Parts: sequence; structure tokens; C-alpha cells
Amino acid sequence: MDRSAGFVSVGVGYEVRGGRARCVRKAVETIDVAILGASGYTGAELLRMLAVHPKAKIAAMTADRSAGKPIGEVFPQYGFGSQFAQSLPDLVKVAEVEDWSKYDLIFCCLPHATTQEIISGIPLETTKVVDLSADFRLSNIDTYTAWYGEHKAPYLQKEAVYGLVEHKRDEVRDARLVANPGCYPTAAQLALIPLLKNKSISSTDIIIDAKSGATGAGRSAKVGTLFCEVSDGMHAYGIAQHRHAPEIEQGLSEVTGEDVLVNFTPHLIPMNRGILETIFVKTSESPGALRQQLIEAYEDEPFVHVLPEGVSPHTRHVRGSNHCVMNVFPDRLPGRAIIVSVIDNVVKGASGQAIQNMNVMMGFDETMGLEGQPFFP
Amino acid sequence: MDRSAGFVSVGVGYEVRGGRARCVRKAVETIDVAILGASGYTGAELLRMLAVHPKAKIAAMTADRSAGKPIGEVFPQYGFGSQFAQSLPDLVKVAEVEDWSKYDLIFCCLPHATTQEIISGIPLETTKVVDLSADFRLSNIDTYTAWYGEHKAPYLQKEAVYGLVEHKRDEVRDARLVANPGCYPTAAQLALIPLLKNKSISSTDIIIDAKSGATGAGRSAKVGTLFCEVSDGMHAYGIAQHRHAPEIEQGLSEVTGEDVLVNFTPHLIPMNRGILETIFVKTSESPGALRQQLIEAYEDEPFVHVLPEGVSPHTRHVRGSNHCVMNVFPDRLPGRAIIVSVIDNVVKGASGQAIQNMNVMMGFDETMGLEGQPFFP
Amino acid sequence: MDRSAGFVSVGVGYEVRGGRARCVRKAVETIDVAILGASGYTGAELLRMLAVHPKAKIAAMTADRSAGKPIGEVFPQYGFGSQFAQSLPDLVKVAEVEDWSKYDLIFCCLPHATTQEIISGIPLETTKVVDLSADFRLSNIDTYTAWYGEHKAPYLQKEAVYGLVEHKRDEVRDARLVANPGCYPTAAQLALIPLLKNKSISSTDIIIDAKSGATGAGRSAKVGTLFCEVSDGMHAYGIAQHRHAPEIEQGLSEVTGEDVLVNFTPHLIPMNRGILETIFVKTSESPGALRQQLIEAYEDEPFVHVLPEGVSPHTRHVRGSNHCVMNVFPDRLPGRAIIVSVIDNVVKGASGQAIQNMNVMMGFDETMGLEGQPFFP
Amino acid sequence: MDRSAGFVSVGVGYEVRGGRARCVRKAVETIDVAILGASGYTGAELLRMLAVHPKAKIAAMTADRSAGKPIGEVFPQYGFGSQFAQSLPDLVKVAEVEDWSKYDLIFCCLPHATTQEIISGIPLETTKVVDLSADFRLSNIDTYTAWYGEHKAPYLQKEAVYGLVEHKRDEVRDARLVANPGCYPTAAQLALIPLLKNKSISSTDIIIDAKSGATGAGRSAKVGTLFCEVSDGMHAYGIAQHRHAPEIEQGLSEVTGEDVLVNFTPHLIPMNRGILETIFVKTSESPGALRQQLIEAYEDEPFVHVLPEGVSPHTRHVRGSNHCVMNVFPDRLPGRAIIVSVIDNVVKGASGQAIQNMNVMMGFDETMGLEGQPFFP
Repeated sequence: MDRSAGFVSVGVGYEVRGGRARCVRKAVETIDVAILGASGYTGAELLRMLAVHPKAKIAAMTADRSAGKPIGEVFPQYGFGSQFAQSLPDLVKVAEVEDWSKYDLIFCCLPHATTQEIISGIPLETTKVVDLSADFRLSNIDTYTAWYGEHKAPYLQKEAVYGLVEHKRDEVRDARLVANPGCYPTAAQLALIPLLKNKSISSTDIIIDAKSGATGAGRSAKVGTLFCEVSDGMHAYGIAQHRHAPEIEQGLSEVTGEDVLVNFTPHLIPMNRGILETIFVKTSESPGALRQQLIEAYEDEPFVHVLPEGVSPHTRHVRGSNHCVMNVFPDRLPGRAIIVSVIDNVVKGASGQAIQNMNVMMGFDETMGLEGQPFFP
Repeated sequence: MDRSAGFVSVGVGYEVRGGRARCVRKAVETIDVAILGASGYTGAELLRMLAVHPKAKIAAMTADRSAGKPIGEVFPQYGFGSQFAQSLPDLVKVAEVEDWSKYDLIFCCLPHATTQEIISGIPLETTKVVDLSADFRLSNIDTYTAWYGEHKAPYLQKEAVYGLVEHKRDEVRDARLVANPGCYPTAAQLALIPLLKNKSISSTDIIIDAKSGATGAGRSAKVGTLFCEVSDGMHAYGIAQHRHAPEIEQGLSEVTGEDVLVNFTPHLIPMNRGILETIFVKTSESPGALRQQLIEAYEDEPFVHVLPEGVSPHTRHVRGSNHCVMNVFPDRLPGRAIIVSVIDNVVKGASGQAIQNMNVMMGFDETMGLEGQPFFP
Repeated sequence: MDRSAGFVSVGVGYEVRGGRARCVRKAVETIDVAILGASGYTGAELLRMLAVHPKAKIAAMTADRSAGKPIGEVFPQYGFGSQFAQSLPDLVKVAEVEDWSKYDLIFCCLPHATTQEIISGIPLETTKVVDLSADFRLSNIDTYTAWYGEHKAPYLQKEAVYGLVEHKRDEVRDARLVANPGCYPTAAQLALIPLLKNKSISSTDIIIDAKSGATGAGRSAKVGTLFCEVSDGMHAYGIAQHRHAPEIEQGLSEVTGEDVLVNFTPHLIPMNRGILETIFVKTSESPGALRQQLIEAYEDEPFVHVLPEGVSPHTRHVRGSNHCVMNVFPDRLPGRAIIVSVIDNVVKGASGQAIQNMNVMMGFDETMGLEGQPFFP
Repeated sequence: MDRSAGFVSVGVGYEVRGGRARCVRKAVETIDVAILGASGYTGAELLRMLAVHPKAKIAAMTADRSAGKPIGEVFPQYGFGSQFAQSLPDLVKVAEVEDWSKYDLIFCCLPHATTQEIISGIPLETTKVVDLSADFRLSNIDTYTAWYGEHKAPYLQKEAVYGLVEHKRDEVRDARLVANPGCYPTAAQLALIPLLKNKSISSTDIIIDAKSGATGAGRSAKVGTLFCEVSDGMHAYGIAQHRHAPEIEQGLSEVTGEDVLVNFTPHLIPMNRGILETIFVKTSESPGALRQQLIEAYEDEPFVHVLPEGVSPHTRHVRGSNHCVMNVFPDRLPGRAIIVSVIDNVVKGASGQAIQNMNVMMGFDETMGLEGQPFFP
């Protein structure tokens, strides 16, 4: 780590009481982080959130097509308004990053499959990695290959920890490489894992009807995600063939100890941010009992919340924040219940969860830099 | 009927071949129709569609709050551009309509529960009625009372025919009072009735995840449907408690001969028009077999279509048109299939279907005035 | 013309009285039209509108990237619902069109600059052309070159008639090649030409603040027009450098007889369709007088309308229709007035106006196939 | 002030360098603030922003219709996620607030005209007020009466300071009652005041074409602001009759020393947040010179920024932040220039500017709690 680049700031940091910043007494150091693929939506969101993170300093950013440009040319919105902008380095090509060891932690926001070779070049003993791509999410190489194609760094798979903090906190704390969970799998697993752990719902009849805003489709130019193709319309896509299905199944199978299959049906909705999953489950227990189990599972979690009985989770409740909000409802069909789980796909489904992982990996307060309230309207 | 108001136009009318207007040889007469509640979304859509209907002349329109105004003041968009506007009568109060018998057919777009008394005052021997409210959809009075409150004209219930033309054509042909189906129930029943008829799917495990644009919430001023509350967000509502559940169940029970319960979970989506229903069913047959059954069930229907294998129905495919488009997909869960059904809730889910009912009731070509292509983008 | 492809339909056609289709007594023939570049937004809109045109039969459609495909694969919404779909030929490459003389009229929806060579290969003595690109809009070759680059068929420029029907009806009637006006210039010139003709406003101080929906940006994949980049935001673009400025100036200069310069400032608005232009003018007359002049200028026009005094034109008033709606308002600044003019950029600003031009060129009723009411909401 | 409610937190606060929170060395105290009218959009935004303000504690909130409810019932999004929610008092009726002196500062988010009597009951010697309504913006009582009706507390008008901090910093520092500027006037005056001060533009020919998102229309239920009425359409409103015109004119007249009239033409745009004003001015100087003057006027301002030459300001550049971004462009018309100014109407146009005013009034760092980066997408 380049000490000169860092700086000691006594008493820096937030304390969540009252949700308002207060001094943390102990002396701490900031760390230097790099963002690979800073010009996409998850990269942009990392910028927005790290700007108010008291301990993470953005020391490098890459974006091959925008290499050489100052941030103000790529994202005018981050190019003014505080010395934050001036503190940001110009964008460079990934290939131009010479010494990875200068950085304490790398956020990798590169496309699936392009990530493996780059990460295999990073010395994990000096530099931790949070990978926002899918490249290290599937621990079974065959499953990865079946859904994404050949894996170029299988040996790293053992190293990778699946960063669903609420259920992997200890592993994440000791991890050097964290695979940041997918957006859909985050909302689904947070709702289902506690109930499967308690054997309260059937593992053979889980139906996940998922709806996502268009940021989930990424920032590359495609006719299908043009404003005029998305607005005022909706459709299902990748029906029973979406790559997030095996990721969800892996997480649930880990809990049940046997192979779980799920119905996962995603839809593109004409909005920017937000995922809402309506999950239909078989259960011998009452919806109230399931709800109670989720309350207990997450009562100490800062980012997962069960709404009051009967209140329907809106994506607006979490927009721009790192929270996941859920609730359980009765079904007209006997022996069934309905779970609704919402997150902001760009935050808890990507960049916010990545920062949450960083906080745990670096021993920071888990909520540091993530206290922002939801954005409304 | 006020003959002077009508006029004979030899060879008027459309013929659908090629989707282009051609003369129908026989001499025909136009009819005089009235629209009660013309200032809401379904009333406005009736205006738009009847403007190009060759045989229906709008002879009266009511809108209590806008009574006395010309159409141009209520809907500037219909107040210019052709003598159509000038042909339209000024709006009046419902109470001011003196002689119902002057009209051949009444479209009733009034709110639920307000409709019964008005319709009970209409002489059905001279004047047919298509009611777009829910007041006559539920044939079982107790069910109606349980979901909507006391019914003020139960004797009319026997008279009322449920106007899902594709499955009630003969009854509609002879009907004097047609209950126009609800928007959600239309998309659901069209997808499910043929499969239940064939006993190809289980009737005890039907899950309907429905998504609708905001026109479905109507045109009355509510904070919950303000632009800033709806845009860039989504949520489920009326979970397991929506009034369209019993309507769907009635239609399906009629087919199976026993009481069917369904899971029906509607969501509000930030768009104007369109309903998409993702229906999860249990089946011992292949998705391909179910798809084939739907193709056969609707091969002669002008308004219901099964897309090519694997093509996902978009609400855009039907936006502004009277079509229902559907398809069947395999499920990762064995013994299950996924059906997707889309309509424009304002057209096939309301005003377009009402005109389709009128056409059948009056012996017009069923597609008359409904040939318009979908609106894109 | 391929007679076998055509067919005689006695009494076909619309008559606008009452805005409802009625038979036109004289025997007429349908014509065969081709659409070049059918897969973009203007091509799609031509399809939607020609589907209900009683005299124009779509005999060929080109779309290079979709060549060989049936319409249903490119636009599922046009691939079902009537024999219209079955009447449509598969898409072909432009280069594959062998005999242009088989078509009575060609709609050219190709990108600027690609059009000239193709059109120069069309025998205008047998086949008329309506070009929706900008290639033949600017009569002055130097101006064209300055804004669009080298012109490849300057000799055709003399032939081309600028198809703003309301002000060029006679020329269009005799034209073989019509340059369909740009979207912004249509709304601007319709508002300004009558007032400049009357010398009622200053020609040296015209400020046009224009706002357009995203369809105006076309259907090619660009990051800047992705849903997430356009929705919930707005910005001005091409400030004082937009190619529609010289087109507007040409039209106004023709009226005044001297070179007119205008301020033209377009903005991208998060919506699909619609252009609204707020035009600030200097005048020695009262706003009421200007308004009266516009009323008189357009009182016999089927597609241009002045709203009642004080009523603000909404793009919703014309959405999906071929109308232009305008009004004049007083300005707090003495000696000034404000004109607001709205159109649907895809209809009156492109495909609808192209059909209006076809109707005039072919001697059809000018409103034929264009009677559709605006789409709301 | 209720000391027990406050608490001393040594070293609390932000320092903007690097846009990251660092300790401010001096010991400081938090203050107790009350929000009157907390259930509207500006009230909600104050909640969101004060949640991360290190020195302002929300001690009371009023919302008459929601009185008695915890925040979680009114705004579920603020009802979880941190002890912030638990730190919030339940909502009460304004009339139920007994002792105003318990609060150091009141944010008044009540409707125009309802505010005067309430504020006249607040003891300004103990309790400062930032009023977000228009009630104290117009210093000339006659002007106020002409546009808003009778003024019920004219004597307070002398007391009120117009809180456009960038141009009133000293007055605001000493103020007890600040009238928070309107959203449109903020964007307009920030762009025009420096140029009028320098006599660089004509004061008799200022044309402001303003476009706003729907939050500007407030949160009360009106048909005109329903999702289906606003989305996919736009229109001008209050043309030459909008109440923000006299407010802008007051600010500009103060600078020029003579009565300035402006053209102010607002438009409703289908988006949530953001105002963009395209301002057309007469000038004898070059656009570059005007641009340079704005750069110099705001070079030390934390919230006002001139973009690089030729870069068009987007509302996205400021969405969710307290920044105003502007630029100057050449006009095709000689002797003219175009200025574009954007803000987030809910932040710099309302709640953010109110906090900026509070910071100055209380002697806090002006940017405290306002460091958040813009929200994208």
C-alpha cells in the first residue's frame, strides 16, 4: 500500500446511532481502493457511495474506452461540487495498471468472463478483491461452464467466498477474494434461506417471479434497452434459462444439503432501479409463523427488515439504499404463502453490497458509508 | 330508436381480409349508442375506438362533473380534427337522460355499485347494455355481496351474460345485458380455460402473478397514483384479497364443475397500459402440448394468438389493440409449466372487449372497428 | 404496376364526415407501395397506419439486417391479429429490389445521405417517392453540403418538392419526389409561416425552444438513448447547431423573401412521442390578433387546429394522430407573444405526413387512413 | 432550547476536502429542529438529508392528516434501517405544538398562505425559521397580494431575508426568518444575477423557458398529476401568469435598480425531479465572455458550477444533490446568447437550499450534510 497516498485521520468514521455521523474515537487509516470498469452503472454507483465513505480512498479507476479522461468528462455529475472530484484520478486502461499491490482492495466491475484472467494477476496477499461479476459466484466449475462457458481461473474458485454477508459474515471477514452476489439471487436468498434452514417451507416447490428495473441490463448500447423499447411496456425474459437460477439454487442447496431446483422467472420493468421478487412457497406453517421466523433471523441485521404485518414492500422503500425489505402474506391456496422481497439492484444488489463486503473484509463498521436513507420520490 | 338520428349507408363497414377496410355488400344501419361515465379512461377509450366504428353512432354521453360541457373542454384531443368532434353531443348528467329507449345500446362505464340502480331503469327490450363495471360479473349474489357489498338489482343477475366472447359467444349473441369481464380475469381466463377444459393442468395449484399499468387504477385523484408515487417504482397490492380473484375463480369453476381457488397477486407497474400475467401451473403434459392446445383453441379467434415457440409476449405487442397474446414455456421444476398472457387492460381488458360484445350482440362483424394495429412505440 | 397484385374494390374508402368510414361512390384502385427501411420507428409507424389505409397495399418492405425474415419476427405486434400480417411480404435487402417500376410509390425511411443513390435509381416516371430522410429537404446544395456533407444526386434536388402539404399542396399534387419535412421544422413552420406571410411578427427575432420525445433519436443502439440514460432527466442538445435550423430557416426565408435566421434549441424529454415547441416572437400586434390569423390560415385544414383561447396544447392532444395543435399566448414582455405548437413527431412529424403526401400525390382524399383519434392515455 | 434533548459531540461534523467526512476540530452542539408539514415531498426530502446531518436533530414533525402516526406508517422508507428511524418523534398536528421555544430552528413546509399566522406565533428570539413556502419571498406586500392574496403578517415581511445564499450570505447569517427561494427562481437568478450586475446582458429582453419534473406540483391528489396524465406527454402551464415570475423579477430588479420584467414559461415534464431553464438573453458580449463572468462569480461557491465549454447541463448532473450547474452557448441570432441552468427542484430548489440556509444561520459549515453526490441513474 502506498502510504503517501493514504492519510491518517484521527477520529474519522461514522457511528450509526440515530443514523447521524458521529466521531469514532480510535485512530484509523484510510485504505486505497481501485475500481475496474468504472464507467458502467455499478462503477458509477461505487463512486457515488465511496464519496461519503470515511475510510476508502479511490486511488485508481479503469475504463478502457474512456482511458485518459478525467472523471468530469465521463460523469459530469461527479466532476464538480467538491474536492472529491479533484481527488479522483483520471481513468486508465486496465492493462495500464502496473502495480496492483499499491491498492488495498480492488472492486472489479468488469463483464462476466473477462474478469478471471485479470484477477488471477492480482496478488491477493497484498490486495483484496471484491468481484461484482458472476465469475466466482458458482463454486462448482461444471455448473459455471454450463452457464457461462470455460472458466479461466478454476484454482481461484476455492479461494472465492460468496459475499452474502448476512449468511457468510465469518467467511467474508477472512476472505481475500469475495464474489459479490447477483442482484436477483440477493433478494431471493435473503427471503428463503432462513425458512429453509428452519425446514418451514418445501424446497421442491419454490416459484420466484422476479421484476427488475433496466439498470440490471447494464450500460452497453442495445436496441432492446433503448428508452423507446423499454418505457410503457414489460415482458418476461430468459424464462427458466436465466443465469441467476443456478446461483440461487446453489445458495439454497447449501442450506438444505440436497440439490434444490427453483422456478425463476425474471421480467424487465420500465424503471431504473429496483428489484421486486414475489415468491410463492409451499408450507405447513402459517404465514404469520414464517414472518416471525424472518423477523428473528434478521432482528440484528442493519440492512434486512421485515415490514409490519400486511404492509406491502415497495421498491421505493429501498431505492438508493443498501436495505432489503420483505414481508410474508397469506395465499388463497391452502398450504401456501407469498413472500415479497425488494432491494435496489444497483445498491444491495451490486455496489452497496460490495462496500458492505469491503467493510467486513477490512474490519470497518459494516454500515460505514451505507447509512444513506432511501431516495424518494 | 330515433330513426332520424340514424342513417342508411349502403355498403358501409369493414371486412378484415388484409386488415384493410373494404365494403361489406349488404345494406346496414348505424345504431345509436350512449356512453355513461365518458370522462374516465374506459369512456375515453370507447370514444377513440367508436370514432372509427362504421355502424355505432355516439348519440349521448354522460359525465356528472363535466355535464354541460362540449367534448373539447373535457378531452381537447377529441375536440378537433374531424367532424367526428362536431358529431358528438355535449356531456350531460346521467340523471338528465330522459328516454333510454332512444338508444340501441348503452355502454356503462360507471363505478362499481353505482351501476345497478341505473341499469335497472333501462328498458332492456328496446335497449341493450354492456356494463364495464363489476356489478353483474359475479353470478352468485353471495359472492358479490362478500366482495362488493349489497347488490341492488339481484334479479338482473340472471339476465346478465358474462361477456368473455371467446368462450360465451352464443350467450352474448342473445344477451340484452352483458357484464364486460374485468381486465385481469380476461387475460387469466383466456390462458387457462382451454387447458382446464382439456384437464391438462391441475385446478388446485394455479398461481397468477399479474402486473398492470396505472390506467387500471382509474382516473380519480389519489395520492397513490400520482406520477411521483408510481414512476420508477413497483409494488404488489391487494395480495390474496383482490376482487378479481373470485371473478377468475367463477370462470374456471364453471369449466371444471367444482370450486376452483387461485393464487392471484397483482402488481402496480410504472406504465400506462398493459397487463402481463405470468401463470404457474402443474401439469402432467409437456409445455409444447399445452401450447398446442392453446393454438387449437384459438386458431379461429381474431383476437387471441399464441406466439411462435419461445417468443416472450410483451405488453407492447398488444398496446392499443384488442388482442390477447400468450405463450407457454418450460419450467425448471418438473411437472410444471409457465404461461404468459398479455392484453391492453384498457382495450381487450375493457373498452375494446365492450365493443367486441356490442358487435356480437348487434350482429355486426365481430372485429368491426377493432382492426387497429398495436401502437408502437 | 403489377395489376395482378392490385385489386379493384368498388366503393372502397373513407369519407370524413363524422369521422366514421363511409363508402366513397366512385370505383377506385389500390396502389402498391414499398417501404425502404421498415424496421425503424418511422417504418413501423407506416406499417401501423397503412394497415387501415383503404387504397395503399404494402407490396415490399426492406430492412437489410432483418432481410429474409417475416414481419412477425421483426415486429411481433404486426405478425398476428388479422390477415394484414399474412398480406405482408417478407423483408428483403434494398439491393435485392429488382424492378422499382412494380411499385406505384416508395416510402424511403433510410438514414440521411444513404438515400440519394438509391432514389436516383428509381424511375420517377413510373414510381413516385416520398423520402422521409433529410436528403432532399434543402434546395440549396451548398447549405446541404455544409450541414450533411456531399450531395450525391444534386440534379434530383430540382425535382424534389418540400412536402409541407398545408403550404405546398399544389406542388405536392404534381410531384414525383417529395421530401417529407423534418419533425421539428413541421411544428415550427406551421406556426410561423402564416404570421410571417402577414408580416405580423418580426423575422429577425424568432426563438424556438423545442422539446422532443426519444423516438426522434431513432432506433439505433446508442448509450445516450438507453432507458436509464433518458428516463427521469432532460437536457438540451445540438444547441444552435441542429440540422433542423437551416430547414426551418429555408421555409421561413421563402415566405419573407430574405434570409431568415432563427434560434432553435432542442431538448430531449423522457417520453416516447411528441414534440412541443414554445416559440417566442416579436410583434406589433396583439396575441389575440395573431391567434385569429392562425385560425383563418388553417380553418379549412383537416390536420392543423388552434385551441380555444387560453388552452395550452399538450402533446397528448395529438399523440398517435396526424394533427398539429397550436395556440398563442400573451407575454409579460411588451411587444412579444408566445406561440405553442405540438405534433406527434412520428406521425405528423414523419410517417403520417408521408401518408398525407402520398394521398395528395395519388389524388386520394387527403385524410384517407389518417382519421384515427389521438391515443390517450 | 431543551438542552437535555441536545447532546455534545466533540469533533462532530464534516469537512468537504475530498468530499469525505473528516473531523472538525472544535467542539460543537447539535440543535433541535422541527419540520412543519413533514408528509409532503419537501418534508420527506428534509428527512432524507437531515438523517446524515451531523448537527441537526429532528425533534418534532407535524402532518395534520397523519398526526399520531410513527414515521414508519407515513414513510415506510424512513421507518427502518437505522436508529435514525427510532430517533424520530411521531407526527403531530401543528396546533398541538405547545412550546416553539423548545426548537432551535423550524423548517416550515406548509402551503402558501397557511404559513403566515403560524410563523407569527413563533418567538424568533429563541427559534429561527426557514420557510419553504412563498409567504415571505415577496418583500412588496402589494405584489404579494396581487399574486397570492391578502398577507396576514405583513410586519414579518421586513424581518424576512430572501435565502438565496450565494447572493445573500451576510443577510442570511444574521436572519431569524428566511424565505427559502422558489425552485424556478433559484435556477433563474443564479444564472442571471452576475450578468446583470456586470450589465453584460439586456434587462428588457430576458426569456426563460423552464421545464420541471412533477414533484414541483406537490403531493396533493389532483387528476392533472396522476401518472397516466403526466407520463409520455408534456405541456406548458401558467404561461406568463406563473407566481414565480414576480419572484424572479424582484431578484433581478434589486440588481439593476429598476423594474425588470421577464418572460417566464414553465412546462410540466414526465419525470420526478429536476428543473432545466433555457434562458435566452440579449448581449453585446460574446458567449465566452458571459461564461467567464459566471465562472468568476461562482468560483468559490460550493454549490454552483459552470460546465466545461460546450457541455450541456443535464438535470441528471444534479439529481438528488444541492448543486446548480450552468453553461453559456452561442446563439445563431447575432447579439444573443443562450444560458442553460439546472437544479434538482426538491434539493437546491427546496429542501437542500433550506438546509444550506440553516447551516449559514447557525454558523455551521455551509456544506454540512449536503456533500451527497448526485444520484445516477
